[in-house]
Amino acid sequence: MNKPLILITNDDGHDAPGIEILTMLMMQLGDVVVVAPDGARSAQSNALTVTHPIRFKKIEEVEGLIRYSCTGTPTDCVKLALNEIVVRRPDLVVAGINHGSNSAINVIYSGTMGAVLEGCENGILSIGFSICDHSLEADFSQFEPFILKITREALLNGLPHATCLNVNAPVGEIAGIRIARQCDGRWTKEYAKRTDPRGGSYFWLTGNFENHEPDSEDTDEWALDHGFISVVPTKIDLTAYDAMEKIRTWNL
Amino acid sequence: MNKPLILITNDDGHDAPGIEILTMLMMQLGDVVVVAPDGARSAQSNALTVTHPIRFKKIEEVEGLIRYSCTGTPTDCVKLALNEIVVRRPDLVVAGINHGSNSAINVIYSGTMGAVLEGCENGILSIGFSICDHSLEADFSQFEPFILKITREALLNGLPHATCLNVNAPVGEIAGIRIARQCDGRWTKEYAKRTDPRGGSYFWLTGNFENHEPDSEDTDEWALDHGFISVVPTKIDLTAYDAMEKIRTWNL
Repeated sequence: MNKPLILITNDDGHDAPGIEILTMLMMQLGDVVVVAPDGARSAQSNALTVTHPIRFKKIEEVEGLIRYSCTGTPTDCVKLALNEIVVRRPDLVVAGINHGSNSAINVIYSGTMGAVLEGCENGILSIGFSICDHSLEADFSQFEPFILKITREALLNGLPHATCLNVNAPVGEIAGIRIARQCDGRWTKEYAKRTDPRGGSYFWLTGNFENHEPDSEDTDEWALDHGFISVVPTKIDLTAYDAMEKIRTWNL
Repeated sequence: MNKPLILITNDDGHDAPGIEILTMLMMQLGDVVVVAPDGARSAQSNALTVTHPIRFKKIEEVEGLIRYSCTGTPTDCVKLALNEIVVRRPDLVVAGINHGSNSAINVIYSGTMGAVLEGCENGILSIGFSICDHSLEADFSQFEPFILKITREALLNGLPHATCLNVNAPVGEIAGIRIARQCDGRWTKEYAKRTDPRGGSYFWLTGNFENHEPDSEDTDEWALDHGFISVVPTKIDLTAYDAMEKIRTWNL
């Protein structure tokens, strides 16, 4: 039996510590191809590069590992890898380990999860791994055995059609794993205003996450706040099925 | 009673014909604030500008309408508008009219729908309008009365929590409106390879949409293929609830 072929990408760039650790972990499970952005592409969601072309180049090839950098977004990396780089269809797409949380509504902004949704759209088992620490010095050591365990179970059991996983880890000691749902909440106070020397205003994105259901114990935010890894099964079908009958009563 | 305050954005840029028509239509329903990108931002999904600051400037103010251009993505435009521009919370966020379809899986790449998801996250009634014609000369005349009808009904009835609308129109004669679900499918043959004068390869995004369920009559693709406007109620909660029990049986 062939070893699994594992495609890895991220949104922090191909040389971020998080993807280096994820690559080492995945090499224990299969043959690895890394196709990752040539620099930081945080908060790129499922953005695609359409106004100019993209390129890729091989930066390393050793036994069981080939690494490429790509000028595009994380989603571009997955598309380009599947269309132009890998010699056979990967058994698994993983993204991360992201330096920063992708829990709750962050899933829709995340370049990491954009890549995971892209793998999922292509019918490939896909998992995103993130840690709640933006620092490039983030300590992934507690998370590592859980990444291996979750990935092994996913390879063994598979996931339902059009479903992927959004896995986030807290900082520090890990209490265990919770299968959770995406917490309801939003960002507030999102801009820091600055003034340039000519008096013009400009705005930096910042903000505070407001948890709309801090007492619900089944959310990813609750899990992370209580020291658990959150595993959120995540869909690429955004249809609000429960709203359809209501809208059919409108006078349209 | 105050007129509704309507925030408009798009991903084709503030001077695209589609947003000009949407603005004229919305001025029949309320006071309008446009905050739209200063150029094309197609396929920007929910991308956020984090590595540099953004700016906005007023470009027009007349009775019932203020227009701003913004250096950011469509999602940035909504965030900046809500945090820094509008004097009161809008009653409605609309995006479009997009030059090009945002049906099926395109919803996850769409800058138009990124803006709509952002409005929805903020608890505001939000609707995206798109037409299946990429041309800047697209004819919106058939679509216009339906945009007014759908928007009036949405303002009258509201939408469930964390639910927005993804509305797409076919080209030409319109047979009516279908409340539909997001069609299952994916893009294939996604790159056109070119060679530069120095022999280097570069890749343009292109591709064919492969409909995985062409015979299902309840999808947005079926509606559009049969001359109907598709209205897909769309969620910002990506949790795959039906997969949770299965994953709880894993050995984690």
